[in-house]
Order: sequence, then C-alpha cells, then structure tokens
Amino acid sequence: MNNEIIKINSDVSIRCGASIVGADESEGPLSRYFDICEKDAYFGQETWEKAESEMVRRTVGILLGKAELDISDVGCALGGDLLNQCVATGYCFSGFDIPYFGLYGACSTAAEGLVLGSLICGGGYSDRVITVASSHFSSSERQFRYPVEYAGQRTPTSQQTVTGCGAFLLERGGGGPYITEAVIGKVVDKGITDANNMGAAMAPAAADTILRYFRESGRDAREFDMIVTGDLAFEGTEILKELLHFEKFEHFDRIYDCGMMIFDRSRQDVHSGGSGCGCSASVVASYILHELENGADDVLFVGTGAMMSPLAILQGRSIPSIAHLVHISSGRKR
Amino acid sequence: MNNEIIKINSDVSIRCGASIVGADESEGPLSRYFDICEKDAYFGQETWEKAESEMVRRTVGILLGKAELDISDVGCALGGDLLNQCVATGYCFSGFDIPYFGLYGACSTAAEGLVLGSLICGGGYSDRVITVASSHFSSSERQFRYPVEYAGQRTPTSQQTVTGCGAFLLERGGGGPYITEAVIGKVVDKGITDANNMGAAMAPAAADTILRYFRESGRDAREFDMIVTGDLAFEGTEILKELLHFEKFEHFDRIYDCGMMIFDRSRQDVHSGGSGCGCSASVVASYILHELENGADDVLFVGTGAMMSPLAILQGRSIPSIAHLVHISSGRKR
Repeated sequence: MNNEIIKINSDVSIRCGASIVGADESEGPLSRYFDICEKDAYFGQETWEKAESEMVRRTVGILLGKAELDISDVGCALGGDLLNQCVATGYCFSGFDIPYFGLYGACSTAAEGLVLGSLICGGGYSDRVITVASSHFSSSERQFRYPVEYAGQRTPTSQQTVTGCGAFLLERGGGGPYITEAVIGKVVDKGITDANNMGAAMAPAAADTILRYFRESGRDAREFDMIVTGDLAFEGTEILKELLHFEKFEHFDRIYDCGMMIFDRSRQDVHSGGSGCGCSASVVASYILHELENGADDVLFVGTGAMMSPLAILQGRSIPSIAHLVHISSGRKR
Repeated sequence: MNNEIIKINSDVSIRCGASIVGADESEGPLSRYFDICEKDAYFGQETWEKAESEMVRRTVGILLGKAELDISDVGCALGGDLLNQCVATGYCFSGFDIPYFGLYGACSTAAEGLVLGSLICGGGYSDRVITVASSHFSSSERQFRYPVEYAGQRTPTSQQTVTGCGAFLLERGGGGPYITEAVIGKVVDKGITDANNMGAAMAPAAADTILRYFRESGRDAREFDMIVTGDLAFEGTEILKELLHFEKFEHFDRIYDCGMMIFDRSRQDVHSGGSGCGCSASVVASYILHELENGADDVLFVGTGAMMSPLAILQGRSIPSIAHLVHISSGRKR
C-alpha cells in the first residue's frame, strides 16, 4: 500500500500564494512575479536569523491581505525552514494566534506543507490552512558553510541558497487551482557525501517519486504542462534526466526546476543554481500559480530536500534525500 | 475557527507502541514498561548521532515486530528529533522503504506526530501510520549545551535530555485505544530567555492548550484518569499548576508529567527532571499505553516543546513554546 498516490478527498484549492525574495532573486528572470523584492538583506532586523523570521512574518501578512482574511479565519499553519530547530518559522508564528505544525523537510518543505495541508483540508479537519517555507542566503551560509565575511569559494556543482519565502492559503472548495493528488516522498540515499553537490544527492529521490507517480497513475507526461522540481539546479537536473532516461521516461521538455528558473546562470554567479526551502516555495507561490491562472492546466510540483546536517557530513555520512509530489490542476478542464 | 478541538473522523487505534531507553532511564521508576533498556550509550555505533539513529531504527523494528507487519504494510511514517536537521530520524528512514514526513516540534514531536498521524488515518488517506520521536542525552548535550567531557554544572531548573525513543502504530479501525480528539498547539512565548529553564518557557503553552481543550469541550477534568504533560519536569509542572490555578482549574491530582515520571528525582541526579522528544515518546509508548490497557479509560497527552536554537538564545531571543494535545480513550466505555 505504501506506493499509493494519495487522492485528495474533496476539492482543495490554493486560494492564493504570497512571495518575498531578496536582492539576487529580484535580478533574476522571475522578478516580476514576486510580491515583494526586498533589497535589505536584514529586513530591518539586526541579525540574519531575525531577518529570515521577519521575511516569513511579512509573507504570511501579504497572504492574509490577498485573501482578505484574518488569522483567526484560518484553521492552522504548517511550515518550516533550514535553520537549526526551524527557528525562522517558529519565531514567526509566536506572533500569530494560530495552531501550528512545525515541519522539517529541508528544501522539500514547501511541497511537504502542501501535501499535509491538503490532507488536513481534504480530510475535513480544517476549512483553511496556511503553508509556508523560507530560506535566507546569509543565515544558511553561516550555518551550513562558512561565515559570509570569509568569502569562501564555491565548487561548480554548489547551489546558492535563495533568500525567499513562499506561502499558500489552502481552502476547501474555492475556485482552484486544486491540489488533486499527492505522492509522499521516501528517503533515498545513494551515497553522495559531497555537501556541495546536493543536486546529485536529491536527483535520485526526485526520480523515485516521479517514476512512482507515473507508474501508479498510468498517465502520460504529455498530459502535464510542467513537471517542476525544486531544487535540483543544473547539476541535479542533468542527473535526473539521466536517471529518467534509464527508465524510458523521455519527456524532458516537460521538466523545469525552480533552482534553474529563479536565477539566470548566464549572467548571475550562482554556480549550479538556486536552492533552499524558499526557492521552490517562492517560485511556486508566484510564477507557477501565475502559469496555472494563465493557461497551464496540470502541473506536478516535486519538492526535493537534502536532509543532512553539517555534523553528519563531518562524520562521513552520505546525504539522505526526499521528494514530495503534488499534482496541481487549474480546474478548467473539469 | 482556529480554537476548535479536532474530532478524529473515524476510529483511529494505537495498535501498539514500542520504546527503547538508555541506562539512566532504565534505573528510573518506569524501567519495567520499556521494551528495551540499552546500557550501551553508543548503541554499537561510533558517534552519538549515529547511536540515536540506530535507536530509532531498532524502535521501529520492534514496533513492526509487535504489530506483525512488514514496512510495506504501513502507508507512511512521521517523525522527528532534536538534532539539527532532524538527522536521527532522517537517516533512520533511509533504511526503510516507506513514505516519510519529517516533523519539527522539539519535545512536542511525539504529540505532533500522533495528531498528524491520526488526521491522516482518520481522513482515510492511509490505513496504517507509524509515528516516532527520539532524543539522546549525549547528542543533545553537545549540540545544545557543552560537550559531555567538559562536565559542565547544571542549574537546578535544568532538565536532563532523555536517551529514548518511542514509536506508535496507528491504524483505522482496530481495537483501541483510540485517538478521538486533538488540539493543535499555538506558539506561546512569554519572554523566558533562560535555556536552562525550559519548563518555565513551556508551561504557558501547556496551560494554553489544556485550557482551550476544557473551555471548548465543556468537559470536567475528573472525566480523565490522567492529564499527561511531556516534559515540563518539576519546575515547569509547578508553574503550570499556578497558571491553571489562576484560571480556576484545580484538578491537580489528574496532572502527571513524563519528565517527572521517567526519573526518580529523590535518588537520580537529574535536577528538574527529564526532557527531550524521546521522553514523552517513550513514556507514552510504554507506561501510558499499559495504563490504558489496564484500567485507565481516558488520558489527555499534552506534548510540550521549546523551539529555540542555541544561536537564537545567544542572540538574546526568548523561547517560543508549543503544546499539542491528543485525547486517547481506551474504548471500553463505549
């Protein structure tokens, strides 16, 4: 039973999304789709960790404003981030009077939240749910790699953590787009030990989830406008395509990656591309929702996460990865 | 709507629990209820982090053995721990072929898993779900406080992180005990900045959730055999009682705390008592389930978590806390 595609019980709409990104992201190709491009990396705070928490708070505020709702109109919130003990999100929600589930899925958190949020909504437990995920370049850099001031050099396969946050308001009923199906990720670890090559670690998890979906559903990839991974970046996307090719899945023209879309690698110095919980969260909450409103009918969002810790890497462990999938449908084809 | 008690849609049973604890816990009053008391703090591994992951793996194995199930018979697993990026649980599940949701709720993780697991089961998405939570004294000590070898002195209000893991097999139908209701915790932060007094930080969250439950349900606390918090320990329990007293809730004879029960403070040098995700997880998966089998009809389990990071504390932030509640009923009174 544990390979099943989960059908969401009743209509669960994404009523709206909200997104905030930082300076580098606002110079990327998706700039015009984000709600706020904030040039101040500190978001008016005195530390990067507080900055990230403030970014989450503002994003949730924008979301409520767009939906014209008060926080008390929402049943619960689910969210997480990359910081130790997920403090960006935890501190944010101490400022909102709302039941809260903390998640840890590394860069898959946006997708994990959408899966669990739609199960809660679809199961009839709550009419409205907020999901949110964030990351911040500078808070991640010093936690996972080096202090920013050290100016450490990156390897070509490394990814740049996105400063960004994306939030979604899910509700039962509503006018779509709808979350209709989900595949919960399994932890996949193929032995990659290079923390500067998370794309290679996550690609097998993405392949596992995508192939499970197509095997179980019997669908054709051409039924989908986009299969959006987040965030394999250049290196990981190449490996994903190779892995899919071995399994006779050749629809590469359908495959997009949030870590590739958020930056323009030809003119931005981001190595393999973007990463971080906030990357796929902000791209899906802005550009992908825009596409669903304006022509795209079916999108598979496959959020990928690399769940190692710096300590585990120092202890020689490889990188366990995961990929959660949600099928988002515009509802126009019904 | 966001103060509601969640009624679990259909019968969700705890088919069984499994628990492993370490040496200190095996010398405590609940020793005979745990499945395994492991004297080797390394669990046969070379680091404490790997030890914790191995403990989680063994606990899930015992759970499957007790339930006479294969991992493929279970729809998904939910779990988490205290380590940065929740690596104890993440690495554990790379060894099991099962869909996995990573959670972060600090010491409330066991309760958070039971809430979400019963929503997934009760919502009809999965017939069987595993939930798990763990902590390890030595991996926590070096991450949150000092290296063990440093032999740092503790303050009287500090708690000892339990080396322990508890897992639950939830299923739709079954013979009980049943999870019948849940209250999702809100993040409560009353300004406590002393990381050696987590009980004080978490007590207001516990009070908030307990009072929400009794206000909404209109029930009398005397209907419950136990209201089990986990883990406020001595200091936090005293504060909880004071907070409840202010609100005219006086049924202190019903209040128990996993951090108080797992150790005997009169003969064990544990200061205020036990803490850690594995404390309430192991106590509820063993002793509390035993009580429900042998006479207790209704138990409220209120899992509390302090969600700060060491970095946030160094930055002068206070401790955001949370408490998730599940109502577990033996089913005999039906």
